[in-house]
Amino acid sequence: MADNKSPDASRRSERSRRAIFEAALALVGEVGYQKTTIEGIAARAGVGKQTIYRWWPSRAAVLLDAYSDLADQAAAAVGEVGAAIPDTGDLAADLRLVLRATVDELVDPTYDVPTRALTAEGVVDAELCAQYVERLLRPSLKLYADRLAASRERGEVRADLDLETAVEMFTGPLSGRWLMRTGPLTHAYADRLVDYALNGLAPR
Amino acid sequence: MADNKSPDASRRSERSRRAIFEAALALVGEVGYQKTTIEGIAARAGVGKQTIYRWWPSRAAVLLDAYSDLADQAAAAVGEVGAAIPDTGDLAADLRLVLRATVDELVDPTYDVPTRALTAEGVVDAELCAQYVERLLRPSLKLYADRLAASRERGEVRADLDLETAVEMFTGPLSGRWLMRTGPLTHAYADRLVDYALNGLAPR
Repeated sequence: MADNKSPDASRRSERSRRAIFEAALALVGEVGYQKTTIEGIAARAGVGKQTIYRWWPSRAAVLLDAYSDLADQAAAAVGEVGAAIPDTGDLAADLRLVLRATVDELVDPTYDVPTRALTAEGVVDAELCAQYVERLLRPSLKLYADRLAASRERGEVRADLDLETAVEMFTGPLSGRWLMRTGPLTHAYADRLVDYALNGLAPR
Repeated sequence: MADNKSPDASRRSERSRRAIFEAALALVGEVGYQKTTIEGIAARAGVGKQTIYRWWPSRAAVLLDAYSDLADQAAAAVGEVGAAIPDTGDLAADLRLVLRATVDELVDPTYDVPTRALTAEGVVDAELCAQYVERLLRPSLKLYADRLAASRERGEVRADLDLETAVEMFTGPLSGRWLMRTGPLTHAYADRLVDYALNGLAPR
């Protein structure tokens, strides 16, 4: 996105960029990652393929930007500021809020369909997976880790807590249930996950 | 597998069946689910494609049987009886044993490569996913659920424990880390998962 032109040209660029993102996400959802091509995205977006090549070096790069933009929109739609998980001092309440919002995203086809396609490709393509994790997944997991670290500072979770594993206690079950469609995704489920992860399965 | 012939014919059938399973798993790992065809499996296995069509109605059916056979072999290799998770009366120890064995399977390319290919396809193909879950995933999750139910009977876990969610506290983080390659899969990690899932993240 190195364009730096008149206001009209910038608006046209922004319109093209949005059209390209929408075309890329729609295509990858319809035909899968493998069959989504730069040519196909260009045709569907109504732009020349040179426009895409000018802005992005590869299909993976367009898709990761498109997906990143979608995730930002999804976060904005549920009122997340995107930069952090709230810290009201009540860890369980804060995590329930975030997990419920994530459930809402995962059941929304706008988000579900392209995310499945990209995740499926990442499962079998280690290089794309590394980019996906670094660009999109890791920053999102870090929000949980930061929130848990703040609680660890205050003694609200185990002092020796391994943050990476701790984050997975929330995100792992939810992602697994979503990806393999093994159970309903509801707010009650989100709340139960938070309860089990924080308090464990042993008798109270 | 409706063959019911002389011992020699049975041996030949069994050899063909094994060759077909190996060819199917190798192909799906190399070229992905979409590009794996009955013709390709037959050519690689050195059998006529009518042999495959006689025994299986579809590509998905061959692959699910091949994968099921692989999972049985993997379980046998680590000394699992396959029918149940041990119940020594020490829930944490029993779960550590199973999670460690699962880690050993997941880092073995024999298991990792075809399982990734099948899982990736299940992520985007709801119909295949439903078969995969019913045939392979659900029975494996049930082993955990049964073991947890036995502990629930004895008051070793919460009396109101939701078994499906409880199982996911072990399998979800592990599957997620494996699928997206977000961290090392080790026995120490398996042990930590069991500890966190049973005892939670809150201060002890």
